[in-house]
Order: sequence, then structure tokens, then C-alpha cells
Amino acid sequence: MRTRFQLGLDELKERLLEMGGMAEAAIELAADAYRKRDGRLAQQVFEREKLINQSERTIDELSVDLLAMQQPMATDLRFVLAVLKINSDLERVGDLAVNIAQRAVNLAQEPEIEVPVDITRMTTAVSTMVRRALESFLSAKSEVAQAVLEMDSIVDRMKDEAFISLVGQMKAHPERIRAYLDVLLISRSLERIADHATNIAEDVIFWVSGDDVRHNVRLSQEPDTDATPNH
Amino acid sequence: MRTRFQLGLDELKERLLEMGGMAEAAIELAADAYRKRDGRLAQQVFEREKLINQSERTIDELSVDLLAMQQPMATDLRFVLAVLKINSDLERVGDLAVNIAQRAVNLAQEPEIEVPVDITRMTTAVSTMVRRALESFLSAKSEVAQAVLEMDSIVDRMKDEAFISLVGQMKAHPERIRAYLDVLLISRSLERIADHATNIAEDVIFWVSGDDVRHNVRLSQEPDTDATPNH
Repeated sequence: MRTRFQLGLDELKERLLEMGGMAEAAIELAADAYRKRDGRLAQQVFEREKLINQSERTIDELSVDLLAMQQPMATDLRFVLAVLKINSDLERVGDLAVNIAQRAVNLAQEPEIEVPVDITRMTTAVSTMVRRALESFLSAKSEVAQAVLEMDSIVDRMKDEAFISLVGQMKAHPERIRAYLDVLLISRSLERIADHATNIAEDVIFWVSGDDVRHNVRLSQEPDTDATPNH
Repeated sequence: MRTRFQLGLDELKERLLEMGGMAEAAIELAADAYRKRDGRLAQQVFEREKLINQSERTIDELSVDLLAMQQPMATDLRFVLAVLKINSDLERVGDLAVNIAQRAVNLAQEPEIEVPVDITRMTTAVSTMVRRALESFLSAKSEVAQAVLEMDSIVDRMKDEAFISLVGQMKAHPERIRAYLDVLLISRSLERIADHATNIAEDVIFWVSGDDVRHNVRLSQEPDTDATPNH
């Protein structure tokens, strides 16, 4: 039989996964708003961000309740603290999706420009990173987290290429600088989302490799006298 | 006589204050590197960022040790969790100072441009916000935190004005777009630092107003059955 504490941990994992799904959906919607020049999609991002913020609050409360409920074992303590960090990363992802959607609204109001940057491809890479990072945490698999770090350098390269192409377009079409700047800032928001995924993955690697917690997560009620922090 | 736990809390506060000082110094140095076009100052920012990262790790470890040491009272639990969040904000401030210093290095290698944006004034505002936010936390004064939020709207306005002026300069001097973009990205990094200060201040307000903890911080060993989270 699972204890009340274990049930709390189960709920925490479920809610974090749900929050990750919301963050991913917000990224995809924001990119759609950009691609389709559709302000209504941007509006949906703004509404979802509010739900993401509520979800962040709920997860924070649940985590603190769990920590306050009883003296958690060191492994559980580390797990819950990691949840708090990841929760905050996911909330920032929601903010960045809003930034992208706002830029999409600006762009939809201006004449269309030719964009030499594949924002859709970048978006797919970035939302995959978020999903994988969360998977790596919930399954405590450092090899999945490692794959996220490798994707980050690809996204960094995309961002640098986007910068160069967009500066070229601005020089060629100074009258459209404002619109190209919007695209440039979208690519930077995407890259910042990738950074949040990377933060999560780095925490997972440190946590898993630091004190092989891989098998302990699910057997979390076992005594653990090692109080080494998880990062 | 102070208990081992209370001594731990004292050390935590001291180290957080020290970390805040390092983050502030990094912001000022990065802005100096920009203003004086001095790559050596930028180098100092890169070196200090390493120290900030070490300090983040130390504070994280100390916090987790404190949480693991004994079942903390709810007030102490909330305090230590707030330290963990603020610690992470300060570490990001260090990263943003590095971004600014990197842009300063780029700019120093290009011919000087006329910049219609007062980066120095913006830097002063932003580093003051970081200092005040930390003060508001350590003194549990929500009115100081409130002043930080008000400064944030001023910095936001500075960033918007910078954006408009710099787009104007780019249109007028397309051959210098790259350099103006560097300045634009510096102003955005400063605004992101202000956002981190705002995060800290918002946490403090929620924490202080949510469950009047104002007087409990220093009397931290008192029992407290209210397990409402601090944000």
C-alpha cells in the first residue's frame, strides 16, 4: 500500500507532466500564430499562459506541502526540490511562448516579409527538447538528458544562422527592419526555451550521476542517509 | 544560544548577500566594459561569473543540507525554499552580465557608433533593483519589494524607448546595423536582469503578505503549523 506521502509524489509527477504538456502546446501554438499570421491563435497562447501560471502555483504548493508533511528521506527531498526548479523553468517557457505570440501579432499587422529562417524547424526542435527533458527527469534517465544537451547546440547554431541571415535582410531592406527584428526576437525566445530545457537536463544529469538515484525514485520511502544535495 | 540550525540560516543569509554583491558587481563591470570599450573589463566579468556559479552551488548545498538536517518549521522551510529560488535568479543575473560583456567585446572591435540610449542610466536602475530586491528579502519588507516593482516599469519603458531609437538608427545607418543590434541586445539583457529582480520582489511580497512572516524570520525556531507555501 502506498503511503500518503507516496501518493503525493505520484500526484506531483502527474501534474508536472501535465504542466510540461501545456508548455509544449503553448510553444506550438505561438509558432502557428506566427506561421499563419493569426491573432486568434496568439490570443490562445495568452489564455494558456494564465493556466500555466496557475499550474505552477499548484505544483509549488503541493511540493511545499509534501516537504512540510514529514521529514522526507534525502532522495525524496532532492526529488521535490528538483520539481520546484523544473516547475519554474516550465513557467518561464510559458512566458517565452507569450513573447513569441506578441511578436506574431506585430508581424501579422505588417506587410508580409520573406524570412530566410526556418522558424518551424526551430520550434519543433525546441518543443522536443522540452518534452525529452521532462521525460529524462520522470524516468531518471541521464542518457535522454544527454540527448537534450546535444540538441541545444543544434538550436544554438540555428539561432546564430538566423542572426546572420536576418542582419543581411535588414541591410538589404532597411524599411522592413522592424519586421525582421520581430523574427530575430522570436528566434531568440525559442533559443531561450531551449536553454530552459537544457537547465532541466543538466539538473537531471547531476542528480542521476551524482548519487545514483535512478532506482531510488520509485522506491522513495527507503531510508537514505546520504544528504548530499542534488546539484 | 543559537542552535546549529539557526547558525546555518545565518550563514545562508550571509552567503546570499555576498552572492547578490557579486551579481551587482558583474552588472556594473559589464556596463563599464561597454562604456569604456575595454575587453579586459569584459574578461573580468567572465571570471566573476565562474565565482557566481560556484557560489550558487554552495548556497544550494547549504540549503539542502539545512532542509535535510532536521524537520524545519514551516516558516524556515519557506525561507530556505525562497533562498533556493533567489539563488537561481542571481545566477541568471551573472549569465546576463556575461551576455552584456560579450556584446561589449563585439562593439569594441567595430568603429564607434553614436548611441541614442543611456545604457549607464539603465544599468544603475537595474543594479539598484537587484540590491533592493535582496534587501527586501533579508529584511522581509514588502514596501521595499513594492518599490522594486515600480522601478521595473521604468526600466521597461527605457527598454521600449531604446528599441524605438535604435530601430531609427538602424534605418538611418544600415551599414552599422550589427553594432546597433549589439546595443539593442544589451538593453534587453538589462531588462531581463530587472525581471529577475522583479521575480525576487514578487516572491517577497507574496511571502510577507501571504502569511505574515515578517517577524518570524528571525525567530525562526518557533513552531508554525501553517504549511501554506510561500508563493
